[in-house]
Amino acid sequence: MADMVDQAEMLELSAAIAEGNRRALARAITLIESTREDHRARASKLLRKLPKREALRIGLSGTPGVGKSTFIEAFGMMLIGRGLRVAVLAVDPSSARSGGSILGDKTRMERLSRAPEAFIRPSPSQSTLGGVARRTRDAIALCEGAGYDVILVETVGVGQSETMVAEMTDLFVLLLAPAGGDELQGVKRGIMEIADLVLVNKADGALKAQAVRTCADYAGALRLMRKRAEDPEEFPKAAPVSALSGDGLAAAWGDMCTLAEWRRKSGHFEARRAGQARHWMTREIEDGLKQRFHTHPGMAARLDALRRDVDAHRLAPDEAAAAALDFFLDPGRNRP
Amino acid sequence: MADMVDQAEMLELSAAIAEGNRRALARAITLIESTREDHRARASKLLRKLPKREALRIGLSGTPGVGKSTFIEAFGMMLIGRGLRVAVLAVDPSSARSGGSILGDKTRMERLSRAPEAFIRPSPSQSTLGGVARRTRDAIALCEGAGYDVILVETVGVGQSETMVAEMTDLFVLLLAPAGGDELQGVKRGIMEIADLVLVNKADGALKAQAVRTCADYAGALRLMRKRAEDPEEFPKAAPVSALSGDGLAAAWGDMCTLAEWRRKSGHFEARRAGQARHWMTREIEDGLKQRFHTHPGMAARLDALRRDVDAHRLAPDEAAAAALDFFLDPGRNRP
Repeated sequence: MADMVDQAEMLELSAAIAEGNRRALARAITLIESTREDHRARASKLLRKLPKREALRIGLSGTPGVGKSTFIEAFGMMLIGRGLRVAVLAVDPSSARSGGSILGDKTRMERLSRAPEAFIRPSPSQSTLGGVARRTRDAIALCEGAGYDVILVETVGVGQSETMVAEMTDLFVLLLAPAGGDELQGVKRGIMEIADLVLVNKADGALKAQAVRTCADYAGALRLMRKRAEDPEEFPKAAPVSALSGDGLAAAWGDMCTLAEWRRKSGHFEARRAGQARHWMTREIEDGLKQRFHTHPGMAARLDALRRDVDAHRLAPDEAAAAALDFFLDPGRNRP
Repeated sequence: MADMVDQAEMLELSAAIAEGNRRALARAITLIESTREDHRARASKLLRKLPKREALRIGLSGTPGVGKSTFIEAFGMMLIGRGLRVAVLAVDPSSARSGGSILGDKTRMERLSRAPEAFIRPSPSQSTLGGVARRTRDAIALCEGAGYDVILVETVGVGQSETMVAEMTDLFVLLLAPAGGDELQGVKRGIMEIADLVLVNKADGALKAQAVRTCADYAGALRLMRKRAEDPEEFPKAAPVSALSGDGLAAAWGDMCTLAEWRRKSGHFEARRAGQARHWMTREIEDGLKQRFHTHPGMAARLDALRRDVDAHRLAPDEAAAAALDFFLDPGRNRP
C-alpha cells in the first residue's frame, strides 16, 4: 500500500519534472542527495521514469578569481537568448568536505537565477568525492530528463574534481585569467590535458592585450600536451572572452557546438558516454565493495582486533587482511 | 604427508636464510614472486619462521642518468667496509608492466654483486603495482630475517613507485644530478615531499661547483615544502656526493644514521613502521576485495552481461554495479 502511494507520488513528480517544473526538479535532486536509503531508492525509480533526452554536458573549471560566476551568468543568458534552457550544477568537494555547500552562487548569478529557462544548483554536501560524483551524475540525468539543452557542470580548478567532472561531461572548458607566461606553470598538467577549450576571461579594457598573449601561450602548450586524433584540427584551442562585455561568448559557444557536432558524427560522442557509463559502473562496484565490507555486522570490532594483532607483530599485514576478508565472505568459518 | 615434507623443507630453507645463505634467500624470494598460490603459502610460512631482526630500510629514488647504480655500488661497498651487510632491492613498475625484469643491475654493480656481504635482487616482474608492492615488502622481510643491516630499496624516480617505496622504508633518499636552478621544477613535488635527504651526485671535476649550487637550490625548496616536527633541525637536507671519488658518501651515511637514531629515540621510527603495517593491511583488504570479486565463479560472464545492459541503456551504471555486488555477496538470490 505504501508502495502504491509512493508509485503515484513518483509518477506525479516525474511528470512535473518532464514538464519543466523547477521546484519538482529541485525536490528530486534533494532526494538524490539524501543519505537515507529509502530516499535514494525513490530517486532511482524516478530517474527511470523520466523521458530519455540528451543535453550537451559541459564541464567548466576555473580557479577562484577568474570570474567564473560572471562568465556563467553572461554565457547562460546568451544561451537563453538563443532559445536554449540551461542548467548549472556546481561541484566543490572542498565545500563537501567541510559539510557545507556553496552559498551565494545564486546571488552571484542574479539574472540567470531569475530566468525561468535556467536552473542553478549548488554543490551537494557529501562527505566523500565518490558521494559527490554519484549525486552529480544523478543530478545531470535529472536535468536531462527535465529537458535542459545545456548542462554546465562547474568545478573549482583544484584537485581531483576536474577529472571527475570530465568523466561525466561531453566537453571540458577551462576558464583562466590573463597572466604572464611564467604563471603558465600554475595550471596543473592534468587539467590542461582534459581541456578541449581554454577560455581566457577578462579580455577587456586594460587586460585585453595580456589576455590575447595568454591565449597564444596556452595554445602552444595545449598543442604540445595533447591532440585527440578524433577532434577537428584546431582543437584543443585557446580563445579570449570577456564575461563583462560579452565579447567572445558567441564564438566560444560556436566552438563548443563545432566540437560536439564533429564528435557526434564520428561516433566519439556516443562512445565517450558509453565509456563513462562503464567507468562509473566500475567505480560504483569498487566503492560498493568497500562500503559493504565496512558495514558488515561485527566488522568494526573485528578490524580493531586485527589491527592490534598487526601492531603487536602477531600477524603480518597481509595475514590480517586475509582474515578480515574471510570474515566478510565466509562468516560461517569465523563464528566463534 | 606432503605437508610434513613441506614443513621440513621450509625449516631447512629458513635456517639457511637465517645463517646468511644467499642462494636460499634468492630461492625464497622466487617463491614470494611466484604467481602460484601454493608457492605464496609456503613463502608466508617461511616468513613466520625467520628470526625477528631489524634492518635500516632506505628508499632510494633517482631518474635514469643520475648515476644510481654507480652510487649504490660505491655506497654499498663503503657500508661493507664498515662491517655491515647490505641488500639492494629494485622496484621498477615500468619493467613490471612489460613483464620483464631489470637486467644488467648486477653487471652495473660489479664489485658489490661479487661481495659476499651484499645481496642484489632485480625488480619482480609482476603485472600490477599492488603485486610489486606485496612482493617487495615480503622481500624486505626476508632480507631482514637473513640478517642484512641495511636494505636499499631502489626505484626509478617517476610515477607512483616512490610513494609506494616510502610506505615500506624508514628513510627516503632522493638522488639527483647537478642542474640549473630552472630545472628544479622537473622533480615532482610529491617526491620532494617524501625525501628526507637529497643527494646531488657527480659533485666532482667540472660539475662540482654546479652540484653545490644545486644543493643550495634544493635545500631552500625542501625547507619551504616540508619540515617534520619530529626530525632534527637540519632535516630534510641536501648534500653533494660523488659516487666516482667517494666524496660525501660517509657524510651521507652519517646523516642517515643521525636521522634514524633521532627517530628511534623519539618513538617515530616504531610509530612509522606500525603506521605502514596498518596502511598495507588496508591496501591488502582493498586489493583482496577486488580480486575475490573478479575471481568469483561466474562473475566475468555476469559483468559482461551487465555491461551490455549499461551500453544499451537498460540499466544505469549504479544499478548494474548493485546487481554485480548482489551476485557476489548473495549468490543464492541470483541463482537462475
